[in-house]
Amino acid sequence: MSVRPTLPTADDLGRTWEGVRSRSPLVQCLTNVVATQRTADVLLAAGAAPAMVDNPHEAGAFARVASAVLVNLGTPQDATVEAKRLAVAAAREAGTPWVLDPVAAGGLAWRTEVARELVALGPSVVRGNASEVLGLAGGAGGRGVDATDSAESALEAARELSQRHGCVVALSGPVDHLVLGDEVVRLAHGHPWLTRVTAVGCSLGALVAACCAVAEDSLAAAATATAALTLAAEDAAARSAGPGSFAPALLDELAALTPEALAGRAVLA
Amino acid sequence: MSVRPTLPTADDLGRTWEGVRSRSPLVQCLTNVVATQRTADVLLAAGAAPAMVDNPHEAGAFARVASAVLVNLGTPQDATVEAKRLAVAAAREAGTPWVLDPVAAGGLAWRTEVARELVALGPSVVRGNASEVLGLAGGAGGRGVDATDSAESALEAARELSQRHGCVVALSGPVDHLVLGDEVVRLAHGHPWLTRVTAVGCSLGALVAACCAVAEDSLAAAATATAALTLAAEDAAARSAGPGSFAPALLDELAALTPEALAGRAVLA
Amino acid sequence: MSVRPTLPTADDLGRTWEGVRSRSPLVQCLTNVVATQRTADVLLAAGAAPAMVDNPHEAGAFARVASAVLVNLGTPQDATVEAKRLAVAAAREAGTPWVLDPVAAGGLAWRTEVARELVALGPSVVRGNASEVLGLAGGAGGRGVDATDSAESALEAARELSQRHGCVVALSGPVDHLVLGDEVVRLAHGHPWLTRVTAVGCSLGALVAACCAVAEDSLAAAATATAALTLAAEDAAARSAGPGSFAPALLDELAALTPEALAGRAVLA
Repeated sequence: MSVRPTLPTADDLGRTWEGVRSRSPLVQCLTNVVATQRTADVLLAAGAAPAMVDNPHEAGAFARVASAVLVNLGTPQDATVEAKRLAVAAAREAGTPWVLDPVAAGGLAWRTEVARELVALGPSVVRGNASEVLGLAGGAGGRGVDATDSAESALEAARELSQRHGCVVALSGPVDHLVLGDEVVRLAHGHPWLTRVTAVGCSLGALVAACCAVAEDSLAAAATATAALTLAAEDAAARSAGPGSFAPALLDELAALTPEALAGRAVLA
Repeated sequence: MSVRPTLPTADDLGRTWEGVRSRSPLVQCLTNVVATQRTADVLLAAGAAPAMVDNPHEAGAFARVASAVLVNLGTPQDATVEAKRLAVAAAREAGTPWVLDPVAAGGLAWRTEVARELVALGPSVVRGNASEVLGLAGGAGGRGVDATDSAESALEAARELSQRHGCVVALSGPVDHLVLGDEVVRLAHGHPWLTRVTAVGCSLGALVAACCAVAEDSLAAAATATAALTLAAEDAAARSAGPGSFAPALLDELAALTPEALAGRAVLA
Repeated sequence: MSVRPTLPTADDLGRTWEGVRSRSPLVQCLTNVVATQRTADVLLAAGAAPAMVDNPHEAGAFARVASAVLVNLGTPQDATVEAKRLAVAAAREAGTPWVLDPVAAGGLAWRTEVARELVALGPSVVRGNASEVLGLAGGAGGRGVDATDSAESALEAARELSQRHGCVVALSGPVDHLVLGDEVVRLAHGHPWLTRVTAVGCSLGALVAACCAVAEDSLAAAATATAALTLAAEDAAARSAGPGSFAPALLDELAALTPEALAGRAVLA
C-alpha cells in the first residue's frame, strides 16, 4: 500500500468498510493473551476472518498468505516475540500490510526495545494511546496499558514517528488522531465505556489491519476502523446498562453497521 | 469406549445429555489461547467441569484422572505441543476418552504434522470443519480456521479417516455430519451466527469430550454435543440482536436445555 | 500493609471500595490464560487498572511500580512460573502487597510445590476454594479448579496457613470465610451462578489485590472484594436468564455498586 497526501472522506470510509464486508480479509493476529477472544470476536463481527498464528514455526509462512498482520506487544514471551519478528520479516517480503500496537511501550524496558526495533521496519500503521506513542517515540512512558497522557500532548510524537518511519500513527483517545506526516484526521466518536472494557484498543488494532487489507491507503484504513468501532460504541452504549453489557452490544452494533451508515455518520475533522 | 455399528437415537442423545448434567465429567482441555474462556464457560453451562491443564509437567498425570481429554491444536507452542503429546499418551494408557480438534490442519505445516501424528494414535472423536478434515486426511488445506470447503466435499475424507483410525469424525458445517466407518448421522440444527462468534467450534470439541465421558459410544457422544450446541443456538438466536449478544445467550440456553427437550427436538437423519 | 486483630466493619468495606474507585490502583496480574480477559474486565468495572505483565524480562521491574500484584497458579508454564517468582521477590523488596491464588493446589504436583514455595514468602492474602486451601496446607487435594470440599472442612487448614505465614486466607464457598489467625469474618452473599461462570474466583483474587492497594489492612481488603463481587452477583442474577447473561450483568453491577450500597448491604458475621 502506498501513502497519499490527500485525506480520506467519509465516502472513502464507507467504501473501505464495504470492502471488509465483501472480501472478508484474513487477518493474522500475533497478540496478547488478554485480547485474543475479544479481538477475534471483533473481527468476526466486522466480517473479517481472524487467525491467531503466533508461534515461530508457522508465523512467517502464514504472514505470506494472510491479507494483513497485526503485531501487538502485550503479554510478550520469548517464543511469541520471535514469532512476531518472523511475521514482520515475512510480511515485508510479501508486501502484506502490517499494524504495530506497542502496548505499554515506554513503561517496560524489554518490549520498548522490541517496539522500537519493529517500528523501524515500517509498519503500515502504528496504533496506540498517548502514553504508548510517547513511549515509542522516546518520551517518558506511561504506567502500563492505560493512557495517562493526553492525545494532544502525544501529537507531536506521532508526527515525528510518522515522518521517520513512513507510517500512519493512529493515536487513540477521547478524540482519535490519525496522523500521516503533517496531516491529521480527527474523529471524536465513541463513549467512555470503551475504556472500561479490556482489549478494545487491541481489537481496534486488528480492525485497522483488516481495513488495511482492502483500503486504498493506510490513512483511510485507520480512519475506517476507528470510525466503525467508535460509532458502534455510541449505538451500543445507548442500549447498555454498564460496561459488561456494553461489550456484547458493541459486537452486535459493529455487525449491524452498514457502509452507508458509517459514511453518513462519520465526522472527519 | 467401544464403537458400535448401530446408530444413536434421539433418546440416546437425551440420556447422554442427562449423564453430563448428573455426573459432571471433568474435562481436561489442552486448547488454544483464543478459546480457553469460552470453552470453559460452555462446559460449565452444560454442567461439566473444565480443567485447563496444558503444561508438560502436569498434563500426563492429569489425563489419567480426567473423565475425558480435549486436544485442540490452535495456537500451538513448543511446550503446549509437548503437553498434548504427553496427555494423549497418558489418556491411551489409562483408557481415558480423548478428542482431537485439528485446528487449521492442512493450512499450516507444523501443526498438520502434529495433527497427523496424533490422529494415528486413535482418538475417540476428531472434530473439525471441512477444510480441517480434508487437510488432516491429506487433501488441500484451507486458509485457516474458517471452512472454505463444503461439508459434503469432505465427507469422503471423513470416512477414510474414520476407517483408518477407528474414530468418529464430527464434521462441522451448516449440516453436521457425524461419521463412523460407512455410517453417517446428519444434524441440521444451528444458526449462521455460530460462525460469527469465535471459538464455538473449539467449544464444541470440548463438549464432545464431556459427552464421551458419559456416553455409551463415541458416535452418540458426538451427536449429543452437536445437537445440544446447535439447538441451544436456535434458541439463543431467537432472542439476540446480533453475534455479540448471541454468545452469552448461547450459554444461557445450553444451561437451560433439558435432556427431554434435546431428545424431543433433535432430528437425526 | 500491617495486619491488625480488630475486625473490619461494613463502613470499612465502603471506605475501601471508595478507595478503589477514586485511586484506581494498578494491579499487575500474573494469571492463567483462561482468566485473563474476565479478570481485566472485572478490575476495569471496579475502577482499577489491570496490567498483565507475566514474562520473566519485565515481571520483577513492574512489581516494583504496581500498586498490587496477583499471582495465580492456573495454566503455569516454565516461563510464567519464573515470572511469578521474580514478581513475588520484587514485590517483597518493594513492599508491594501481593495475593496468591493457588489454583488446583493439592491436585497437581508441580504447581503444589510452587504454591507451597510461594506461600512461605508471606503473601498479603491467599485466596482459594476449600480444596485448594486444604491442598496448600498439605491435606488431600481436589480434582482441579472446582471445590469438592466444604468451606467449613477447610477452615482449620485456613487458620493454620494464616498463623504459619502471617497472611489472610480468603476461603471461597457458598459462605466466604476470611481468616486471620484465630479471627474469622463470614460473608454469605452471592449466587450459585458464580460457579457456572469461569474465572470468577480468579477475578476475585485480582479484586482482592486491588483492595489491598488501598485498604487499611489485608482483612478489610479481602472482605471488601468478596462483598463487592458477591453483592454484585445478587443484583446481576436478579436480571439474568442464565449463567451466560449473568457474566456481563455481573460487570455492570460491579461498576454500579457504590461505596454506600456496599456498606449498607454487606452483612459480616
